[in-house]
Amino acid sequence: MLKVLKFGGTSVGSLDRIQNVANIIKKLKDNGDSIVAVVSAMSGETNKLIEYASTFSSKPNEKEMDTLLSSGERVTSALLSIALNEQGYPTTSMSGREAGIITDTSHTKARIERIDTEKMKTTLDDGNIIIVAGFQGVDIENGRVTTLGRGGSDLSAVAIAGALEADVCEIYTDVDGIYTTDPRIEPNARKLEKISYDEMLELASLGAKVLQNRSVEMAKKLNVNLVSRSSFTPEVEGTLITKEENIMEKPIVSGIALDKSQVRVGMYGVSDKPGIAASIFTSLADENINVDMIVQTVGVDGKTDLDFTVPTTDLEATKIVMEKFTNDCVNIDYNDAICKVSIVGVGMKSHTGVASKAFSALANNNINIRIISTSEIKISMIIEEKYSELAVRSLHDAYNLDK
Amino acid sequence: MLKVLKFGGTSVGSLDRIQNVANIIKKLKDNGDSIVAVVSAMSGETNKLIEYASTFSSKPNEKEMDTLLSSGERVTSALLSIALNEQGYPTTSMSGREAGIITDTSHTKARIERIDTEKMKTTLDDGNIIIVAGFQGVDIENGRVTTLGRGGSDLSAVAIAGALEADVCEIYTDVDGIYTTDPRIEPNARKLEKISYDEMLELASLGAKVLQNRSVEMAKKLNVNLVSRSSFTPEVEGTLITKEENIMEKPIVSGIALDKSQVRVGMYGVSDKPGIAASIFTSLADENINVDMIVQTVGVDGKTDLDFTVPTTDLEATKIVMEKFTNDCVNIDYNDAICKVSIVGVGMKSHTGVASKAFSALANNNINIRIISTSEIKISMIIEEKYSELAVRSLHDAYNLDK
Repeated sequence: MLKVLKFGGTSVGSLDRIQNVANIIKKLKDNGDSIVAVVSAMSGETNKLIEYASTFSSKPNEKEMDTLLSSGERVTSALLSIALNEQGYPTTSMSGREAGIITDTSHTKARIERIDTEKMKTTLDDGNIIIVAGFQGVDIENGRVTTLGRGGSDLSAVAIAGALEADVCEIYTDVDGIYTTDPRIEPNARKLEKISYDEMLELASLGAKVLQNRSVEMAKKLNVNLVSRSSFTPEVEGTLITKEENIMEKPIVSGIALDKSQVRVGMYGVSDKPGIAASIFTSLADENINVDMIVQTVGVDGKTDLDFTVPTTDLEATKIVMEKFTNDCVNIDYNDAICKVSIVGVGMKSHTGVASKAFSALANNNINIRIISTSEIKISMIIEEKYSELAVRSLHDAYNLDK
Repeated sequence: MLKVLKFGGTSVGSLDRIQNVANIIKKLKDNGDSIVAVVSAMSGETNKLIEYASTFSSKPNEKEMDTLLSSGERVTSALLSIALNEQGYPTTSMSGREAGIITDTSHTKARIERIDTEKMKTTLDDGNIIIVAGFQGVDIENGRVTTLGRGGSDLSAVAIAGALEADVCEIYTDVDGIYTTDPRIEPNARKLEKISYDEMLELASLGAKVLQNRSVEMAKKLNVNLVSRSSFTPEVEGTLITKEENIMEKPIVSGIALDKSQVRVGMYGVSDKPGIAASIFTSLADENINVDMIVQTVGVDGKTDLDFTVPTTDLEATKIVMEKFTNDCVNIDYNDAICKVSIVGVGMKSHTGVASKAFSALANNNINIRIISTSEIKISMIIEEKYSELAVRSLHDAYNLDK
């Protein structure tokens, strides 16, 4: 099998951890697999370099930041290659450039345009293990080093797996897979064996630390089988994220996600002027504020109440935008003591009564639902934050997710 | 003027020092100079990476070492570029690859084959300051990163200055030039304004910390005007190392060098067998042992004594070689309590009595000379190590070098 492996910062966070990664790769190679390993910078290195740069400039030149930040991954790739080489395994490190990763020119957040795989293919054909410095490529116009932004090494790995048509892309972190919910909240949370790309995207909050949406989306697009597993317990099978067709037995509900990083904006007594909602959401979009859930209720007096949520980090920006609309309503308030619980599962499409079971479970615990929104494979509910753990546990129980 | 500047590890050893380098460059740029600055890794960084690699392998793969070690210079180049950019100066960092430095394939000690200057030239023409990551290039066959070995950043700077036909190549260290002798031994030592390449090469021990012979040789070959000066006192003019023709007033003696890192090998009563000396020195050369001074004296009995010096670091290797010749002589001894003092000056060629003045100066202090060797511009003498400082001071005085 051709396997693309990705090891994040904590997996290569020390010389011991790098040796551990070498051992994981050796075992796979001994089993006959062909290996491309994508590595991050040793944890802490990138932040150190960012701090260095910030002493010289509050807004450092982005091209130079890319040159600066791409160095950490190169160090790890060389060290891992040296470690494997020492054990008699033929290896070669490759920078983003050498791996043929061509991006656009958006420095610090470049998008991969294509991967020229020729060099990687001949190197693999010669029996070598390839260690690729993640997070980086070269821009298509000037050939300067670019970086791919947050979660960039995952993107490198998925894109390489797609380009090489690898059998699997294994993302190693310090977590051994995707769970039905956060085990710190519900100790009975169960690790999922398989999950579809779409479910994974909806369960983002469960996987945020292990898989970023950008890489799951790319895996879906390139049809790459992703595995989330741990470099600390490599003997444990992780969770396979794959296309829905590959999952024979589709569970009605796969998991319960919790998101505490939202603020509810309430706009009360909105005058019934055409286009007022459109105007608000256009203004928010112009400021790159990501509005999540929206509910509009029409009162008896013809006036409407508008409820929506935005990320907590965008609260100040949202307040500035909303200033413009104070004359269009009676009152605006902001509530960050709320959270969003979501039930996710591809089986929902073909089953009825999924939502009502959720509403009952919350009602039984006297938890009020402020906003509800549903999609084909997800039901999300805004509730008071103080009930978040209770809500997760009762929903986990209601759908028998521990079984 | 087009100036190539080189800043070594201590000159960029901290964020403060990097800011200081930015200030030096700014001043030159404000004066209307075009600038290419070559930088080393922050001091300590390269050793840290070597230590990292050594935990995985006692003899790490050399290609990977080059990938590993080249990262430090890239970090410095990006940081310095960010610092200058922040002050409104258009800058760009360049890796060895981007600067067009093409080397042979001898990883960890590559030789520069050529420099493709096109990109640097257009970048300079656009008014940019270029910051080049020193110590590195890419190999001519595979395009992999190579490093140039000890003193590699100096070589980068000199080669770039040669290729761009720069007016001057300024090597910044923590020493403000070349002195007539070591000021720690002779407080009256005087900084030289100008010195020829050949004198500099002979005075290596005076400049070893500031200029390596490899870069002086390259400067001579490429006809690059070298300046040795300090980044800690940039207002002080340094020493210009240039071709002899550029030095109008040629001093008879330019400086006194001292070298304590030699061992004298004495081989007594060597039988008068043809080719014995040739055989010894061939055997030493085969082991890469650099024999420096050689004296052969024929005794009354037809037997000869052979005296020669080798670097202290090669003593053990020398002893092993000499084992083979124990039957060819009465006795072999090794004496590391010796040192070599040298008088260097291009004016010697056209002056007589230079040597006799040295011999008198030492004789006046009862210092015995064990070996003498002379070249066109140098007189070297092996004496007992305990007299080293006294010898340097009396010679400095004899030639009035403090004036």
